[in-house]
Amino acid sequence: MITITGKPVCSGIAFGPVFVFSREESTIKRHHIESSDDEIARFESARQQTISELGMLYDKALAEVGEANAMIFQIHQMMLDDLDYIESIKNIITDQLINAETAVAQTCDNFVQMFRAMDDPYMRERSADVKDVSERLIKILSGKDKDGLVTDEPVIIISDDLAPSETVQFDKSKILAFVTEGGSTNSHTSILARMMNIPAMIGAKGVLSADANGKNAIVDGFTGTIYIDPDEATINEMTKKKEEIDKQNKLLQQLKGRESVTKDGQKIELCANIGSVLDVGNVLKNDAEGIGLFRSEFLYLESNDYPSEDVQFAAYKDVLSKMVNKRVIVRTLDIGADKQVDYFNMPKEENPAMGIRAIRICLQRPDIFKTQLRALYRASVFGKLAIMFPMIASEWEIVKILEIIDEVKAELDSEGIAYSKNVELGCMIETPAAAVISDILSKHLDFFSIGTNDLTQYTLAADRQNPDIGKFCDTHHVAILRLINMIVQNAHKNGTWVGICGELGADLELTEAFLAIGVDELSVTPSAILPIRKKVIETNVSEIKESVLDKYLN
Amino acid sequence: MITITGKPVCSGIAFGPVFVFSREESTIKRHHIESSDDEIARFESARQQTISELGMLYDKALAEVGEANAMIFQIHQMMLDDLDYIESIKNIITDQLINAETAVAQTCDNFVQMFRAMDDPYMRERSADVKDVSERLIKILSGKDKDGLVTDEPVIIISDDLAPSETVQFDKSKILAFVTEGGSTNSHTSILARMMNIPAMIGAKGVLSADANGKNAIVDGFTGTIYIDPDEATINEMTKKKEEIDKQNKLLQQLKGRESVTKDGQKIELCANIGSVLDVGNVLKNDAEGIGLFRSEFLYLESNDYPSEDVQFAAYKDVLSKMVNKRVIVRTLDIGADKQVDYFNMPKEENPAMGIRAIRICLQRPDIFKTQLRALYRASVFGKLAIMFPMIASEWEIVKILEIIDEVKAELDSEGIAYSKNVELGCMIETPAAAVISDILSKHLDFFSIGTNDLTQYTLAADRQNPDIGKFCDTHHVAILRLINMIVQNAHKNGTWVGICGELGADLELTEAFLAIGVDELSVTPSAILPIRKKVIETNVSEIKESVLDKYLN
Repeated sequence: MITITGKPVCSGIAFGPVFVFSREESTIKRHHIESSDDEIARFESARQQTISELGMLYDKALAEVGEANAMIFQIHQMMLDDLDYIESIKNIITDQLINAETAVAQTCDNFVQMFRAMDDPYMRERSADVKDVSERLIKILSGKDKDGLVTDEPVIIISDDLAPSETVQFDKSKILAFVTEGGSTNSHTSILARMMNIPAMIGAKGVLSADANGKNAIVDGFTGTIYIDPDEATINEMTKKKEEIDKQNKLLQQLKGRESVTKDGQKIELCANIGSVLDVGNVLKNDAEGIGLFRSEFLYLESNDYPSEDVQFAAYKDVLSKMVNKRVIVRTLDIGADKQVDYFNMPKEENPAMGIRAIRICLQRPDIFKTQLRALYRASVFGKLAIMFPMIASEWEIVKILEIIDEVKAELDSEGIAYSKNVELGCMIETPAAAVISDILSKHLDFFSIGTNDLTQYTLAADRQNPDIGKFCDTHHVAILRLINMIVQNAHKNGTWVGICGELGADLELTEAFLAIGVDELSVTPSAILPIRKKVIETNVSEIKESVLDKYLN
Repeated sequence: MITITGKPVCSGIAFGPVFVFSREESTIKRHHIESSDDEIARFESARQQTISELGMLYDKALAEVGEANAMIFQIHQMMLDDLDYIESIKNIITDQLINAETAVAQTCDNFVQMFRAMDDPYMRERSADVKDVSERLIKILSGKDKDGLVTDEPVIIISDDLAPSETVQFDKSKILAFVTEGGSTNSHTSILARMMNIPAMIGAKGVLSADANGKNAIVDGFTGTIYIDPDEATINEMTKKKEEIDKQNKLLQQLKGRESVTKDGQKIELCANIGSVLDVGNVLKNDAEGIGLFRSEFLYLESNDYPSEDVQFAAYKDVLSKMVNKRVIVRTLDIGADKQVDYFNMPKEENPAMGIRAIRICLQRPDIFKTQLRALYRASVFGKLAIMFPMIASEWEIVKILEIIDEVKAELDSEGIAYSKNVELGCMIETPAAAVISDILSKHLDFFSIGTNDLTQYTLAADRQNPDIGKFCDTHHVAILRLINMIVQNAHKNGTWVGICGELGADLELTEAFLAIGVDELSVTPSAILPIRKKVIETNVSEIKESVLDKYLN
């Protein structure tokens, strides 16, 4: 048995055979041809076939993962229509009288080199697309176009990491778990795993060289462990763990459709955090009462340039439509700090977590901000939209934002574009300053959402991502609970409702405290919703209020 | 006229001729000698002369700048007694029959290379000392030992930066101003300038190549500008500015010896911040009522290894004795973040301002902390000592510190070493968490000192040193004033007094607000004390209290 640990990204336990996914480049045989006309005709037919195959992939992706993620296949189609690209291939065939596969490969190399030499980071990135599309063309030319996941039984997939264009070709019903050697919590594979709600782990160093292909394995998505060739003791232990969890899940399933209300009638809204259009299925499956945090960063992170208004509109519309009139709170752009995007060309900062990030970028570069706001308001007619702004610290920032929104609305009015008049506006409370002036901010806003991760790190002046920070970053610190209490009391005085969308919201140890304080909403990872609802239904707030407040606020 | 701007570090205006200080290495003539015995005798005599010269420099430095800064000359004396060093020089003279200057230079080169190749950063640093002491020896051998500041009239000194071993040789009465091309606010030259209270500026890029030597110049230490060969208009303007300032200063001098008390009898203590033993003269000259912040970092920053208990003891004793029973608050080690010290071997951090710094280092490495506490308690019998701890965020940290202090006292008791029983203990309030739980912290402590610089950057999540942060770091933010108010109210309930030692304390615009809130002490840069006293004496708190609190807290 080989045991490899990594970082868990989606819980659950999976048993099954391993499929190691590797993307080998095809080897190309170079040979001379008799007639360039025949060879050019063969190339043309392959080109048309590739274009039509990409069209099918686009349709599949559109249905499965939404427009923003599907777009890559349209870009690839356009490349195959590029006149320079086509002419180069035809010229090589005619001049050198060699086969089309070799001509495509040579042209690909030339284009890749040309793109890589460019100054523009967007164009440099295009070299990967040229390679991708040329590979596909060569495979069709050489009759090897049967790649992707070739399996007729469900498997545990091991890979370095997977691109959207790769996973879209998988038959999803055949995937038991994902284990990647690279990847990040927000990589496409992680998001896909969470959407499909299957066990997944990343950073499993050494798993690709463990010679696991075809062997039996167990993935524990709770601890982030894969056991290859598991021994009997491990199989028994994991089987027992899985049964236990299945039993619990079954109990939780009975809570679906129930209201989240305490024994003594106090309601709390239980919503979901999502980071991509892909997550919506899982949101609905876990009976979320809405989306309390839709992180819009994926639109910027997965792109090579500022995402257009239309691309953004498509994503927002998609989620709003799927959520059918349940509230969707979209948080505007929150890059900077640990989320860097090349094409923003932000200067390197000594302390990026306290630098120019999130709303600060948007206020310095209102063109980017307005594009997002236009897309949001245009999408607002397709569901129940709310918008919130990250990293607020001062009242003037809110005043400025409301001015910009008025400008956007006036533009849409003058263009005759419809938008909802009932878009709720709120802000994240994640700086200590925003907490301390929450009475002032609440006069301008419909709601607050407390970002406990950032609020904690700034309040304690302790970087939560610093591996040495240890007990200097105590998430249950009395100062944090006091600030949450202060925010709720301040907000309620002005009729502003308050949610929590940081990790603390899913902490079952604190559910009673949040109820006692009077928090109106918790927005958590979808799988945490039903366990919290269970806790809520079992609580009698009036009974525990005094002792819980005393315990956490003093 | 050439105008060069830099960063002002000590205010005032100086007129006078420029002296460009440069440390040229002596050129050494290599020549053969007749008798190695005679040459060795000549070397021995020069060595003895150098040792005795270093002894005189040590005595001068001890009187002028204290033991910690003087120690370098003792280290240099020890090097001249090093047997390997002496033997190498003698061997070269004997074997190669060459002059002593060349033998010293060759030995120096060999030792420097040897030290530089070492793994230990402390030993690597020693290479600069070998070079320094060998240079001195060569100059004496070749009769060129008349370096340093050679002038019989007062001058404006221009240099790259100056080491303590260089400035100690200057006749201080001949220095009108310092202008350095390099340097930092806390460099030795800056500290010396503030101690002497003469105009100084750093970072004056290009000033060394401006061919200024011997020319007339004006230094404006308020704006950080040097005018070389000033035109008549500038001379007139600066003369007028100087007269204006002299007039103001004269008025302020009349406030010396006066109590800092408002018209309606509210007292506030006006103390000084210092960063080195050197600053004490200026503290007394400005009639500070005590030292509210003695930054102990200079002991660590100016050293190549952890400063010993004795070196620290000498510095604390020095300041306590000079302050003759006025209170001196020493802040324990506050390195990390933007103050890095090589030999601490701290890992590189993504957000150093929110990393392992200050008390967090001391709690992780109590050996370093205990050495400092022992030195402090040993020095406590020489004056009125108070100790405060930086970067506190949680109650457990204070509890742990008090435990360590009890251990230190028990050790001193068992060794029969005397210490004061009246050492006040306090902590910095510079994290938002400490402000929010100041009621809890105040139960353990005699006083708080609010570090507004850090408190502001954490509260607003805005790195004050980020050049792009602009209006996202508003030092008058209502959240900061509210937190200061909250701290004072919480502390007073438990009989804990509250000072402010951040830059905000010297902000005359806020003096009324601090009086209205009830702040007990302001600790500021020495030159700010008398202007604040003027403001205090002119204020009637009961008259302005309501309107000022309303303005700054709402």
